[in-house]
Amino acid sequence: MDAVALIEATLTTALLRAEAGDAPPKLAAAMRHAVFPRGARVRPRLCLAVASACGAPDLQPAAAAGAALEFLHCASLVHDDLPCFDDAPIRRGKPSVHAAFGAPLAVLTGDALIVLAFQTIALGAAANPIQLAGLIGIVAQSVGMPGGIVAGQAWESEEAIDLARYQRAKTSALFAAAAMAGALSAGHNPAPWRALGEYLGDAYQIADDLCDAAGDAATCGKPIGQDDALNRPSAVALYGIDGALDRLDSIAEAAAASIPDCHGAVPLRALIIQEAKRLVPKTLARAAA
Amino acid sequence: MDAVALIEATLTTALLRAEAGDAPPKLAAAMRHAVFPRGARVRPRLCLAVASACGAPDLQPAAAAGAALEFLHCASLVHDDLPCFDDAPIRRGKPSVHAAFGAPLAVLTGDALIVLAFQTIALGAAANPIQLAGLIGIVAQSVGMPGGIVAGQAWESEEAIDLARYQRAKTSALFAAAAMAGALSAGHNPAPWRALGEYLGDAYQIADDLCDAAGDAATCGKPIGQDDALNRPSAVALYGIDGALDRLDSIAEAAAASIPDCHGAVPLRALIIQEAKRLVPKTLARAAA
Repeated sequence: MDAVALIEATLTTALLRAEAGDAPPKLAAAMRHAVFPRGARVRPRLCLAVASACGAPDLQPAAAAGAALEFLHCASLVHDDLPCFDDAPIRRGKPSVHAAFGAPLAVLTGDALIVLAFQTIALGAAANPIQLAGLIGIVAQSVGMPGGIVAGQAWESEEAIDLARYQRAKTSALFAAAAMAGALSAGHNPAPWRALGEYLGDAYQIADDLCDAAGDAATCGKPIGQDDALNRPSAVALYGIDGALDRLDSIAEAAAASIPDCHGAVPLRALIIQEAKRLVPKTLARAAA
Repeated sequence: MDAVALIEATLTTALLRAEAGDAPPKLAAAMRHAVFPRGARVRPRLCLAVASACGAPDLQPAAAAGAALEFLHCASLVHDDLPCFDDAPIRRGKPSVHAAFGAPLAVLTGDALIVLAFQTIALGAAANPIQLAGLIGIVAQSVGMPGGIVAGQAWESEEAIDLARYQRAKTSALFAAAAMAGALSAGHNPAPWRALGEYLGDAYQIADDLCDAAGDAATCGKPIGQDDALNRPSAVALYGIDGALDRLDSIAEAAAASIPDCHGAVPLRALIIQEAKRLVPKTLARAAA
């Protein structure tokens, strides 16, 4: 089974368990709406790519951790889209969860996906309980306080905001967890893998800012021009479009260079560079040097 | 250290970790507001009482699981109080989290407390990794889909609602998890302990309905008469006050009788009966037979 199929199968199995028996039907449908059809699944793909590069004999624990990170990412999108935050009507090219199901079920969808994330890790690591506490710790750190996505979102409620800290918490933390969980699931020390994840989180955030500033709504899967309209911190506001493209290039190279020596380091480095190029909106793609 | 002190110490240590370093200050304050000053802490006290009755040599894992259940309980209160649900201005005798900090930070407070719950279990079970997957599973089942608190809350968004299923998910599931996690943390089979938790959850729900119908706001720590005003399902609406008091008595006896044989079964049975009496609003307390 290739990586994408393994991820989709892991997400589907977990959701089927959540919907089993006498589950309230609307919340079950709202959870499915939040997770399918699939986005790019970049976080679970990163987790599996690192686990493979580290020579993991069994990819199931990495797939479970990756699926958990995807559930947490989806939960954060559902809650960020709520009327009390961005009030976004569209996500991934279709109505956001609160637009389709109402705000109460959108709050509960996020909550249920957070719980499902930790449940999925625990089930996935059943055969290897020794790593479970570490995997839960890595994932929890990337989503909770003081430095995970929830903390990143909370910086928007503070009077003063530090752009680097905000983006590290809101985006990079989940990527760092993906890389670290992939390594740990293969029995490797996760700490040296944090840098790869953080660089990729930075790259992804810049690409998202570029998409918002210069992409089109169909490709981005959501309304564009929101950073400007909501006066949100963004790499384009800070460096301009060309400056942001330059930073994306140099961050992708730093990401590839940061990969620790391991069984599959060379193909992983190539994959990272290739994925970073894919992130640039087509309208801005530069000719290869 | 007695049970209450151990619970407060475990909650405080976890919150200090969540606030460490460069945490966004308002979210940190909102989390503290949601958890302190303490409510009755009935779920962690049940977890510790069962672990003690089962002869647990070390109460730390049970304290961690109990603290996690308290964080999840607090998270559910914060989200239930949101404007899109009950829009409750008061909780535990002070402004609800959204009244004090606004809806965005209230959403994030619930999210952060859910994450902190699982992180706390993982840290508490570090010395005994074999039980960790089981503890996470028990706790996740009690809060997530298809039958936990989140599912219970979601039944309020369905056209047809089954009162028993609704209350089992919304209240009893967390009590069942408390009893089962306490047993598992002592190395006992958790399954036979589910009934105790479910009976206590039923008792607590009836007591809450009685408080809402016939208590006073100061004792209840929240506005009363809400079930009637919001036309919510309630034991008082269904059975009347006297009928609800009768049910509370018989459920407390069934709870005590359900306790499996173990080292400390006799004092635990006495404790359960005593705690059930304490739940009845003073204005309704009946003379001892």
